[in-house]
Amino acid sequence: MLSFENDYSEGCHPQVLEALVKTNMEPLPGYGNDYYSEEAKKKIRKVLHNDDTDIYFLTGGTQTNETIITSLLKPYEGVIAAETGHIAVHEAGAIENHGHKVLTIPSYEGKIKASDLEAYVATFYQDGNHEHMVFPGMVYISFSTEYGTIYSLEELKDIAKICKQYKMHFFIDGARLGYGLMAKENDVDITDLSALCDVFTIGGTKVGALCGEAVVFTHHNAPWHFIPIIKQHGALLAKGRLTGIQFNALFTDDLYFKISAHAITQANKLKKLLQDKGYQFYLDSPTNQQFVIVDNEKYASLLKNVRVSYMEKYDETHTVIRFCTSWATTDEQLLELEKLL
Amino acid sequence: MLSFENDYSEGCHPQVLEALVKTNMEPLPGYGNDYYSEEAKKKIRKVLHNDDTDIYFLTGGTQTNETIITSLLKPYEGVIAAETGHIAVHEAGAIENHGHKVLTIPSYEGKIKASDLEAYVATFYQDGNHEHMVFPGMVYISFSTEYGTIYSLEELKDIAKICKQYKMHFFIDGARLGYGLMAKENDVDITDLSALCDVFTIGGTKVGALCGEAVVFTHHNAPWHFIPIIKQHGALLAKGRLTGIQFNALFTDDLYFKISAHAITQANKLKKLLQDKGYQFYLDSPTNQQFVIVDNEKYASLLKNVRVSYMEKYDETHTVIRFCTSWATTDEQLLELEKLL
Amino acid sequence: MLSFENDYSEGCHPQVLEALVKTNMEPLPGYGNDYYSEEAKKKIRKVLHNDDTDIYFLTGGTQTNETIITSLLKPYEGVIAAETGHIAVHEAGAIENHGHKVLTIPSYEGKIKASDLEAYVATFYQDGNHEHMVFPGMVYISFSTEYGTIYSLEELKDIAKICKQYKMHFFIDGARLGYGLMAKENDVDITDLSALCDVFTIGGTKVGALCGEAVVFTHHNAPWHFIPIIKQHGALLAKGRLTGIQFNALFTDDLYFKISAHAITQANKLKKLLQDKGYQFYLDSPTNQQFVIVDNEKYASLLKNVRVSYMEKYDETHTVIRFCTSWATTDEQLLELEKLL
Amino acid sequence: MLSFENDYSEGCHPQVLEALVKTNMEPLPGYGNDYYSEEAKKKIRKVLHNDDTDIYFLTGGTQTNETIITSLLKPYEGVIAAETGHIAVHEAGAIENHGHKVLTIPSYEGKIKASDLEAYVATFYQDGNHEHMVFPGMVYISFSTEYGTIYSLEELKDIAKICKQYKMHFFIDGARLGYGLMAKENDVDITDLSALCDVFTIGGTKVGALCGEAVVFTHHNAPWHFIPIIKQHGALLAKGRLTGIQFNALFTDDLYFKISAHAITQANKLKKLLQDKGYQFYLDSPTNQQFVIVDNEKYASLLKNVRVSYMEKYDETHTVIRFCTSWATTDEQLLELEKLL
Repeated sequence: MLSFENDYSEGCHPQVLEALVKTNMEPLPGYGNDYYSEEAKKKIRKVLHNDDTDIYFLTGGTQTNETIITSLLKPYEGVIAAETGHIAVHEAGAIENHGHKVLTIPSYEGKIKASDLEAYVATFYQDGNHEHMVFPGMVYISFSTEYGTIYSLEELKDIAKICKQYKMHFFIDGARLGYGLMAKENDVDITDLSALCDVFTIGGTKVGALCGEAVVFTHHNAPWHFIPIIKQHGALLAKGRLTGIQFNALFTDDLYFKISAHAITQANKLKKLLQDKGYQFYLDSPTNQQFVIVDNEKYASLLKNVRVSYMEKYDETHTVIRFCTSWATTDEQLLELEKLL
Repeated sequence: MLSFENDYSEGCHPQVLEALVKTNMEPLPGYGNDYYSEEAKKKIRKVLHNDDTDIYFLTGGTQTNETIITSLLKPYEGVIAAETGHIAVHEAGAIENHGHKVLTIPSYEGKIKASDLEAYVATFYQDGNHEHMVFPGMVYISFSTEYGTIYSLEELKDIAKICKQYKMHFFIDGARLGYGLMAKENDVDITDLSALCDVFTIGGTKVGALCGEAVVFTHHNAPWHFIPIIKQHGALLAKGRLTGIQFNALFTDDLYFKISAHAITQANKLKKLLQDKGYQFYLDSPTNQQFVIVDNEKYASLLKNVRVSYMEKYDETHTVIRFCTSWATTDEQLLELEKLL
Repeated sequence: MLSFENDYSEGCHPQVLEALVKTNMEPLPGYGNDYYSEEAKKKIRKVLHNDDTDIYFLTGGTQTNETIITSLLKPYEGVIAAETGHIAVHEAGAIENHGHKVLTIPSYEGKIKASDLEAYVATFYQDGNHEHMVFPGMVYISFSTEYGTIYSLEELKDIAKICKQYKMHFFIDGARLGYGLMAKENDVDITDLSALCDVFTIGGTKVGALCGEAVVFTHHNAPWHFIPIIKQHGALLAKGRLTGIQFNALFTDDLYFKISAHAITQANKLKKLLQDKGYQFYLDSPTNQQFVIVDNEKYASLLKNVRVSYMEKYDETHTVIRFCTSWATTDEQLLELEKLL
Repeated sequence: MLSFENDYSEGCHPQVLEALVKTNMEPLPGYGNDYYSEEAKKKIRKVLHNDDTDIYFLTGGTQTNETIITSLLKPYEGVIAAETGHIAVHEAGAIENHGHKVLTIPSYEGKIKASDLEAYVATFYQDGNHEHMVFPGMVYISFSTEYGTIYSLEELKDIAKICKQYKMHFFIDGARLGYGLMAKENDVDITDLSALCDVFTIGGTKVGALCGEAVVFTHHNAPWHFIPIIKQHGALLAKGRLTGIQFNALFTDDLYFKISAHAITQANKLKKLLQDKGYQFYLDSPTNQQFVIVDNEKYASLLKNVRVSYMEKYDETHTVIRFCTSWATTDEQLLELEKLL
C-alpha cells in the first residue's frame, strides 16, 4: 500500500545499504572502535568545520535524547522544552523515568519563543523560594520541529544568548536535521550549529539510515566517561559498525544533504498537489511533513488506499492528518497519490 | 519577631509535646512497631469509621507524596495534578527524580475541575498513538489547596467518578487536611474520604506536630511490602515512636480537629482585620492561608516587623503575599499585627 | 587482521543480509508492527511449540537485560546472579541505574548452583529482619554463560523448582543461546525453555544478526503495557523492521541453529588446535568461547597477528585470554591461526 | 519489659528534650534556616576545629547515606563498602533505588582492609575493559561498624591515602560515631576526621536525639545546590528546628561526648556481666554493641524477659544475638539483666 505515513517506512538509502553489504564480512572491533565509525566522525567534523567536537553514534531518537539530557543535567535541574516537544509528549516519560523534569513553555507551531524562554527563567530566579523548584538546566528544541517548522538563524541566536546568560545547556534535537537544513526557507548552515548550541544530533533513522543518531558535543563537552554512561542506558551497540558504516556512507559525497534535499523537493510537489486539490493546511510547513485538515469521511476514504498519520482531532467532523515525504519518496508515488486525493 | 509566615513556624502543640515528654524514657520497639503507633492507627480508624485502612506514618510532605505516588504508579504512568500543585511546582522535582511525570491540567485558585480532568483523559485514550505517551495513572489534589481553597463534596465525587471510570488512583494530599475540614464553608466530612479516594494523608507537620504525615490507604490497598519501600525512600524512622506518639496525641479527644478549628477562627479574625484595613484579596480563601495584594513599599515596610510569605510578583509595583494562621496563632499576635497593617 | 576476539566482529550472516536487501524499499509500519516482525514471532513460536509466548525484539544485550529485569521486579526486589554474571559485572551498572540491586551468589565457571541459590533464599526468609533487605525477586542465568559453559537440563530444572517455590521470576539470558543449544554436551532443547523459565532471550547480535535480541515471555507474562516501557528505556526502534526482518531470516529453515552448529564445529577444531599446540585451558568450555592461559610474552606476540580477548591476569607472568568462534568462522581462518599459535 | 535490643529504644536525652520544650513556642524560619540550626553548626565546627565544613541536618541514617552517596557519585560510579556494610545489606536497596551500585569487598568483623581496597581498585584499573564496569567512585565505612568494631587512626589513614590516590570520595558513616570515639581502645579524635575523609555523619538518632544525622562535608565540598537535592530526596524537614535544636543541645557542654562515654561505661559493665556468666562472645567489640553466641533454648528463655536483637543463625543449635547499651542505659537495668542471664 502507498505510504506517506512517516519518514521511517523504508529501510535505508541504497548507498547506505551498499556500504553495509560491502563491509559485511570484515571483522571489526566492537563498541564503536572501528575504522568506519572513526571515518564517519572525521567526515562529520569536516562538514561542521569543527575539530573540537566529541561525536558518538547511538541507535534511536528517544534513547539519544534521554541519554544526552539526563547525563548533562545536574540532579536538581530540568530541561525546558516546547509543550509540544517530543521529549515532553511522545517519549513515554523517558526523561522522567531517568530522573528529570521536562519544564514546558508555549509552543508556536512546534517552536518556542526566546521571549517566553527569557520570561520563564527570569521569573524562576526572581522567585524567593526557587530552591524548592526544579532549576532550568537545559533548553531543548527540535530542528525541524515536530510540526515541520524551522527556526531562523536569528531565532536560534536569541535562544542561544539566553542559554549562555543563564548557564543552561542548549540542545538541538536533529532527528530531522537534514530536512530542516535543506528547506528553501532555511537560513541556518550546519556550520552555524557549533557556535549556537552545546550539543545537537544528526538524525539517521529518518534520513536514510536503518537506525542511528549522531550525537555531536560541540566543544569537547561530552560528559566524562560517556561510554559507560551510554552502556548504562542500554545504548551501546556491540556492533558499533552498524551505525559507523551507515554514517560514513551518509557523509560521503554529501549524501546526507542530497537525500534531504530530495525529500524537500518531493514535499514541495506534495504541497502543490494538496493545494491544487483544495486541501486546507493546518500550518505552513517548509519541510517534509505536511499537515492538513480533512473531514472525517474523506479521512476514512483516504485510509483505504494510502497510509497517513493521525495527528489530532480538529473538531467533531474534522481531523488533522500528516503526509510525510522522505529520501525515499518517488515521483511515481506522488502520481499515485494525486489520483487518490 | 511576629510571624504569620506559614503554619510550621512553632514546634508542636503543648499536648503533643507533653505526650513526647511523658513517654520519653519508655523503651519501645523501633520502626513503627510500638504501642503508640498502634494506638494512633486505631484512633484514626475510629475517626474514619473505616477498619479497612492501611496506615503508615512518614516524616514530611514531599517525602510522603513521592513515596505514595511512585510506589502506586506503574512505570509507564504519571500523575495528574493542577499546574499549581505542590508536587508539580514546589518539591524540587522529587516525583520525576523517582521516575514519574507530573501531568498538569489547569488550576483554578489551586483546584482542578472534573471537566478538565475528563477532557484530558478522554483525549489521551482517543489519541491513536498513546503508547508513546505517559499514561494517566493517578489524580493528585490537595485539600485544602496551596491557595487555601477547598473542594465541595460534590466536586470530589465528580473527580472520584472519573478516577474510577479510567482506573486511576485518587490521592488527596492532606498536608493541611485539618484546616480544610474545619473551614466554615466545608461540606466534606473526614468519614467521606474513604469512599472518595484510594489514599490520603493527614498532615501533622502543619497541624500541631513537630513532624509527621499519616498515610491512609482506604481499602487495604497499600503497596505490597510497603515497609521496605518506605525504607528504600529513606522515609522509615528508626524511632517510629516519634510520629506514633504525636499522632496518638493528635487523635486523642479530637485534638487534631480542635486545633484546626482554632486556626480557622483565627484566620477569620485575620481576614476581617485585613478587610477592615482595606487590603485587596488575591482570592477568597476559607482556610488558614490568606493571600493579599500589596504595593511593594507596603510590603517592604511590613517585613520590618512581621514575617509573611512572598508568593509572586503581581505587577511592577505590587506583590502577592500570604498571611498564615495555625493551631498556634494567638489573639495577642493578631492584636499586634493589627497595629502593623 | 585475523580475529578470534569475539563473536560480534563481522556484520550479519549472508542470508540475513539478503533479507534486509530484498525488503529494503518496502514501506512498512514502524515500531515493530510490520509483517516481518509478525512472521518472525510466528516462526519462533513454532520452534518453541508454544503459542502462549509474548515476543518482543530489542536491540542489544544490556538494554534487553535491564528492560526485562527492571520491568518485572517490584521496587523492593533485586535479581540474583552469579558473581561473574554479565549483569553483575559488565553492564556498567545498568540494573542499578534503573533502580535494582544485583544480588550475587558464587560462580562455578560462570554457573550458579541450585544448592547455593536455595541456601541464599532460605537464609533470607529465615532472617528476622528481612524487611530492611532487598528481596530476591528474580534469578538470572546466562546460557551459554560468560565462560562458555552450559547448564544440564537437570540443573535448570533444579533452579526452576526453587524459583517456583519462592515465587521468583526465572530469566535466562540467551545472548549466546544458539551456541549453548548446539554444543555436543548439551541436553537442553529449545522447547524445554518455556516450561523452565518465565522469560528468556534469543540472542541475535552474537548469532548472525547485525543487532537484535528476541525477548520471549513464556506464558503471556509480559509486563502490562510493555511497549511504553520499552520506549521509556530508549529501546523501541522506529524501524522495528530492522530486527523483525533479521529474526525472520534467522528462523527460516533453521538458519539460527545451523549457523550456531557451525560455530560449535569450528570451536571444536579450534580446541583441538590449541590442545595440539600444548595450550593450557583455563576451563573446559563446550561452546564457542575457549579460554587459555598464556605467558605474557606469548600473549604479546600473538597480538601482533591475531585479535583475541583479554580476560584477566592469571599471575605475574600469565594471562587468561579468550578465542571465540562464531557463525562466521571459516576453515581458512583456523588454518591461518594454526600457523600463529 | 527490659530492653537491650538496640540503641534507639528510648526517646531523647533529657537535656535534648528540655531544649525542645523550652523553644517550643518560638516562631522560627523553616527548612533549617533557624537560629538553633545555625548555632548547632557553629558548635560542631568548633569541636572539629574546622571552619571549612558544610553542615546539614537530615532525619535518618538510610536517608542520609543515600542522599550523600548518590549526590556525590557520578552516574557511572559506585560506592565500595564492606560486604556487611549497612548500605550493602540493611537499607532495602536504597542506594540502588537511587541509581548506584554498592561494590563489596571482604568484611573483617565489620571493617574493610586497606590492602583489599587497594587490590580491588588496582585490579579495576588494570582490567582492559573497565568502561563496561562500574567505576569505584567512593569508599564507605562505618565508625563504629555494624559489629561494634572501630578502626585505628593508622587504618583510617591507609584507607584515606588510597582514596586520594584513586580520586575516590571517602565517606564515614557515623551513625554511632560517639560510641566509636569514646571507646577506650580508640585513638581517633573527632578533629582527625576532617583531614581523613570528605564527608562524615554525626549520628543523633542512636546517640541522644529523637531523630537526626548531621552531615559534615569537610572542605566546602557539599554538592552544589544541596538543598534542592535534599528536598528531592524527601529529606528536607519543614521544621528544620527539630534537628537544629537537638544538635545544638547535643553539642552544648560536650553532651554528645559525655552521653557516648556513658554508654561505653555501661557496655563495659555489660561485657563483664556476660563474661562472668560464661557467655561466648562472637567477637570482641570495644563499643556499645556486644555480640554473643547462645544456644537456642537459652535465647528463647531470655526473650521472655529482655528484648535483645537476633543477628544470625550460628549453627543448628546456636544463635548470634546482640545486647546494646546506649546513652540511656542505667545501672538498674544492668542489675536486672544480671539476674536474667
